Amino acid sequence: MDLKEVIASVAFPDKEIETLAWEKLDSLTKPPRSLGILEECAVKYVTARGDLHASIQKPAVLTFAGDHGVAAEGVSAFPQEVTPQMVANFASGGAAINVLAKLEGVAVRIIDVGVAADCPFQGVIQRKIARGTANMAKGPAMSLEEAQEAITVGIEEAWKVIDGGATLLATGDMGIANTTPSTALYSVLLDIKPRDITGRGTGINDRGLIRKIITVEEAIKINSSRLNSPLETMAALGGFEIAGICGAIIGAAMRKVPVVIDGFISGAAAVCAMKMNRNIAPYCFFGHLSADSGHKKIMSKMGIKPLLDLDMRLGEGTGAVLAINIIRAGLAVMHEMATFDEAGISKS
Amino acid sequence: MDLKEVIASVAFPDKEIETLAWEKLDSLTKPPRSLGILEECAVKYVTARGDLHASIQKPAVLTFAGDHGVAAEGVSAFPQEVTPQMVANFASGGAAINVLAKLEGVAVRIIDVGVAADCPFQGVIQRKIARGTANMAKGPAMSLEEAQEAITVGIEEAWKVIDGGATLLATGDMGIANTTPSTALYSVLLDIKPRDITGRGTGINDRGLIRKIITVEEAIKINSSRLNSPLETMAALGGFEIAGICGAIIGAAMRKVPVVIDGFISGAAAVCAMKMNRNIAPYCFFGHLSADSGHKKIMSKMGIKPLLDLDMRLGEGTGAVLAINIIRAGLAVMHEMATFDEAGISKS
Repeated sequence: MDLKEVIASVAFPDKEIETLAWEKLDSLTKPPRSLGILEECAVKYVTARGDLHASIQKPAVLTFAGDHGVAAEGVSAFPQEVTPQMVANFASGGAAINVLAKLEGVAVRIIDVGVAADCPFQGVIQRKIARGTANMAKGPAMSLEEAQEAITVGIEEAWKVIDGGATLLATGDMGIANTTPSTALYSVLLDIKPRDITGRGTGINDRGLIRKIITVEEAIKINSSRLNSPLETMAALGGFEIAGICGAIIGAAMRKVPVVIDGFISGAAAVCAMKMNRNIAPYCFFGHLSADSGHKKIMSKMGIKPLLDLDMRLGEGTGAVLAINIIRAGLAVMHEMATFDEAGISKS
Repeated sequence: MDLKEVIASVAFPDKEIETLAWEKLDSLTKPPRSLGILEECAVKYVTARGDLHASIQKPAVLTFAGDHGVAAEGVSAFPQEVTPQMVANFASGGAAINVLAKLEGVAVRIIDVGVAADCPFQGVIQRKIARGTANMAKGPAMSLEEAQEAITVGIEEAWKVIDGGATLLATGDMGIANTTPSTALYSVLLDIKPRDITGRGTGINDRGLIRKIITVEEAIKINSSRLNSPLETMAALGGFEIAGICGAIIGAAMRKVPVVIDGFISGAAAVCAMKMNRNIAPYCFFGHLSADSGHKKIMSKMGIKPLLDLDMRLGEGTGAVLAINIIRAGLAVMHEMATFDEAGISKS
């Protein structure tokens, strides 16, 4: 695969569908625009699909797992062995993402793209590139080749489920310590000070928080010569699962399949994808506002209001999967409601 | 029915269930409290039901319809004839509430409790008390007896669906001009100036907005001797459908069935119910933050963060029905996720 070519091939959606979609919505038996974000979701979805009658088929969440050398700096409340343990939990169906995806009728795909231990569990897709990243506080987390490989895995895994009939994807992550590289990516790509957006992740204390801020600052400093493009930045400061998510977003957008972005970690991958090609943004739904303290500032800087705001901070794709229901609701409204003419109702 | 007795009989839920519910949630494979409001919803629901293993059965939305004499003051963007037209639309399944309730697996009950025209449509529950309220800007909207009758209808209709097996209700409204009486109710019951919370409803212009504020102020002034209790306030400044919703909330709470409150209008009914008996609050979920401008101030004054914030302002129960999915998600997490012990995962 020529990665550059794939990224460049993402096309901006056809604006004519957007106009037709609003006309349809404004003809329905409700005050104009009174269903707010539901209507915006419907318009965005059918416009991205290039089909006024599009609906959601076979939605799937792709949850990428990877480990982080930077965990050695003591930036997480949980030990690194939890990553493969949670992958096993995903495989046996006991995790939050399994439960919520089942409730929402969403298929779950777990992809090991860089866990530090073997994950020989049935149903886990084996795409391991390395056993965790290197410690970004001491040098680049990944080589350029590794980052490209992880992005390629993401693209290929997205294409697989799209070839299977999926018309909506959601992204998710598992990787102990991965709010730390995500914070570094946001800082560099959006030009925000690490201390303004560093949060407690799964629950570190005050000392841990200070350590985390210093670690992010050190990582940015030591890698400062390697941050000249979104791809280089992903390699130096990202992670295998973050690059995988970035790839899934690119792969889906190229195929005109919208993607629901989960919270803090998936958001960092999305920012990176959107910096690679700005045509990707119209395919991205931001699923939920993470309770991790920096996410609000980041979303606000990007001018994005995520669909849900439920004080969630789990990752795995949980917020994205829940947000699918909002898009479904918007599409149901658009496709199933009566028009003023059909119902014989007086207009204002 | 002795209304006073029913209202007084609502009991505060058993706090022991709440403690057990948090213990269960904290044992699951996720950082503690990392699913935020989902977890709070699960705890609130099982505590209200008095059953740690409770799940949602046969949810139903009760949408009450009524007309308002105050529409004569020109406070709405739509003419009054739209109320029965929309009731007909509900009956034929073409409205937003039908589409969203179907998506969410929620039964729809439409109750005519005071529409100004006949509503002889199949499936509409005929409980009309009068053909619209009187103009509250000239005197009381309803007599005390009428208000009591409408509340009683609400209680009885809630009990009917609960007797049919519903363990979660949602409320909805239809009534041209009904943001005006709702604004008056909030102003009096929460001691807020009308001008601080009067919004554009279905879409009035600047002149209409000023007229609406003046109308609310006049209604409060002319009825000032009749606002000595929540019931009197409901009679003087409310409406048949608002009183019906108030009754449905009371009736459900008495039977330990939680209720998802829709937006601006249902919220006014809920405030009234909670002022009648403060034990009612633990049974109320506030479904969504209305885009009608006053709702944010009202919710903030009440210290409530509604489950959804989707710029919706349609009523009918649309926001409440969508919010049911959040409560369902919380309960699925609580009842179906693996514990740390079951999954053999290291704790932090």
